[in-house]
Amino acid sequence: MKNSLFIQACRCEKVSRPPVWMMRQAGRYLPQYRKIREKTDFLTLCKTPELAAEVTLQPVDILGVDAAVIFSDILLLLEALGLPLKFESGGGPKLDKVFYLGETVRSLHPLDCSKLGFVYDAIKIVNRKLEGQQVPVIGFAGAPLTLAVYMIEGETSRDFHRARKFLMRETSSFEKLLQKLAKAVAEHLIEQVRAGAGAVQIFDTWGGLLSRDLYKKIVLPSLRQVIDPIKTLGVPVILYVNGSAQHLETMKESGADVLSVDWRLSLADVRKRIGYGHAIQGNLDPTYLYQHPSDIEKSTAEMLYMHPEPGLIANLGHGILPDTPVENARAFISTVKNWKC
Amino acid sequence: MKNSLFIQACRCEKVSRPPVWMMRQAGRYLPQYRKIREKTDFLTLCKTPELAAEVTLQPVDILGVDAAVIFSDILLLLEALGLPLKFESGGGPKLDKVFYLGETVRSLHPLDCSKLGFVYDAIKIVNRKLEGQQVPVIGFAGAPLTLAVYMIEGETSRDFHRARKFLMRETSSFEKLLQKLAKAVAEHLIEQVRAGAGAVQIFDTWGGLLSRDLYKKIVLPSLRQVIDPIKTLGVPVILYVNGSAQHLETMKESGADVLSVDWRLSLADVRKRIGYGHAIQGNLDPTYLYQHPSDIEKSTAEMLYMHPEPGLIANLGHGILPDTPVENARAFISTVKNWKC
Repeated sequence: MKNSLFIQACRCEKVSRPPVWMMRQAGRYLPQYRKIREKTDFLTLCKTPELAAEVTLQPVDILGVDAAVIFSDILLLLEALGLPLKFESGGGPKLDKVFYLGETVRSLHPLDCSKLGFVYDAIKIVNRKLEGQQVPVIGFAGAPLTLAVYMIEGETSRDFHRARKFLMRETSSFEKLLQKLAKAVAEHLIEQVRAGAGAVQIFDTWGGLLSRDLYKKIVLPSLRQVIDPIKTLGVPVILYVNGSAQHLETMKESGADVLSVDWRLSLADVRKRIGYGHAIQGNLDPTYLYQHPSDIEKSTAEMLYMHPEPGLIANLGHGILPDTPVENARAFISTVKNWKC
Repeated sequence: MKNSLFIQACRCEKVSRPPVWMMRQAGRYLPQYRKIREKTDFLTLCKTPELAAEVTLQPVDILGVDAAVIFSDILLLLEALGLPLKFESGGGPKLDKVFYLGETVRSLHPLDCSKLGFVYDAIKIVNRKLEGQQVPVIGFAGAPLTLAVYMIEGETSRDFHRARKFLMRETSSFEKLLQKLAKAVAEHLIEQVRAGAGAVQIFDTWGGLLSRDLYKKIVLPSLRQVIDPIKTLGVPVILYVNGSAQHLETMKESGADVLSVDWRLSLADVRKRIGYGHAIQGNLDPTYLYQHPSDIEKSTAEMLYMHPEPGLIANLGHGILPDTPVENARAFISTVKNWKC
C-alpha cells in the first residue's frame, strides 16, 4: 500500500500520473448510493459497518478512484462525546445550541473510542475487500474549529456569528474547547489508522470565516495538537481548509503532509506560495462538474497543466454536489487517469 | 466637500487621520433606529425619503462618523427592474426563483430610474441637512454578480449552487444578465451622484464564492461596465468584495478608486499586494466589536498601525452586526478619530 500512487503522491514522490479521488465521493450523486438510502436513514448507514463499507467502495468500483474515503460524518464524534445529534430528513444535522460555553466545555466527556467502533469496523471491512488493489482507505475527522463551531451553533449557519461571538467574548473557554476537541479528534484518527486507514484527512470546513491572524493565533495550536501524534504513525496527514486563500502559510505550519485547498485559487498560485515541501490536493470547482463532459475534460486538463511537478493529488475543491451527473464525475476522473506526467 | 477627510483619503492625499465609517452603520444596533422600525416596516422606511434620511443621519449625529451612507437596500434595484420583492418579518428578503435563465434575461426591463426616486430624494435631504459639515453622502448599489445571484436563488443561501449551476451551464445567458444588471447599476449610481452623493460604493457580497480566474473572466467586465461611466463624474468609486483574499488584483483592475476589503487579510498584506495607486477601505472583523471596549481600542490601533501611509479609510471588514452594543461601535470610531497619522 505504501507503493500506491496515492501514498507516493502524498510523499511528493515522482509518479506516472496524479492520483485522483473526490471529497464526498461516496454520496448522493451515485444512484447505487441513493438506492441504499431508500431503505436506510443516514445515521443507520454510518453506524452499520457492512453498509458503510459498501457505499465507501461504490466510487472505487464505479469510477475507479485511487483512494476510498470512509463513509462517515464529522459530527458523529460530537455524539460520541455525549452531545445528542439529530438528522432531520430534508434539513441538515442538528445539535443542542450552546448557551454557556464555560460550563459546556467543563462538562465535556473525554472520548470513549468504543462508541465509534462502527467507523473502525467499516475501515477493516473496506481494507479486506480492497486487498490486492493499490487503493488506500482515507480516514477523516472534522477539525477542532469546525466541530466547535457546529457544537455552539447547533446547526449550519451562514456567518456563524454566535460561535464567533463566543470566540471574542470567552476566548479562553473557546481555546479550552478547541484543546478538548483536538484531543478527541487525534484519538479518533489514530484509531482509524490502527484499523487500517492509509492516510487521514482533517476537514476545516469553516476555517475560511476567520482572518489569517486570528486563525494562526487561536486555531493553529489545535491543528498541531491533532497532527503531531498522528505523524509518529507514519501515515500522511491531509489538511483541508475551505477558504484556504488566506490560510495557506498557516496550513503549512500545521505539520500536515498534504495541503488540500479549495477551488478559489489556481494550483499554480498555491504552489508558488507554499514552495515545494508539501503535496497539494485539489482543487477543481465542484460546480465545474455541471458543465458538459467535454468541457469538464478541458477544465480538468487546465488544472493539471498548472501543476506539472510531483506532489499533486487531483481532487475537487470541495465535496461533489449531490446533483452532479455520474458521467460528469467520470469525465473528471478519467481525464486525470489518462494524464501523463 | 472635496476637501472632506473622506474624499481626500479616497484620493490617497495626506490627511491628519484616517476617516472612518461603518458598513450598515444606519441599522439595528442603534436604539434610535429600532425605535423608528417599531412603527415602520423595512421597505416603507427605504421608500420614505424623510425617514430614510433620518436614519442615514443617526450614526453621524450619535457616533460622529465621517461619511453618511444612504439607508437603502441593494434589492430595491431588482424591484425597480420589475421583479417582485417581499420582505418577510423574521426572514430575509425574497424574490421569485429563476427557472429559465435565458427567458428571464430576455424579459428584463431596462431600469426606469423614476421608480427609485425615493433614494435620490433621500440623498438630497441628507445633503441639505449636512450642509456646512464635511460629511459626504455615500450612494451604493449591489454588484451585478451579487444581484444576479440573489435574483436566481430568490433568497440568501450558503453556497449558491443554483446560481453557480446556471453560470456553468448557461454561461452566455449569465453574462448577458450581468451586462443588463451592470447597465442598471451604473444608471442607479449615476442618479445618486446627480442627487448629491459624494462617492459611491459597489457591494459584491458574494464575489468570494468564485475562484480568482472565473471572477476575472466572467465578473470583471461587468464591474468595469459599472465603474467606467461613473468615473467621468469625478466622484470616487469604492468596490467592496466579501472574500477579497483571492480577488485583490482583479479588484484593482476594475478601475475602482478605493478597494474595500473584508476582514480576512491584514491591511499590511493587502497594501503589499496592491501597491500604492489605490486607497484601501477596511477592515476590522465586525465580530471584534463583541469585545470589551478597551480591547476594541487595542484591535483598532493594531489595524491602524498596519497602514501608516495615506490612502486608508477605516471601516469594518463587513457590515456591523445587529447585536453590537453602541458603546463598542463608539470605541472603534473614537480610536480612529483620535489617531494621529
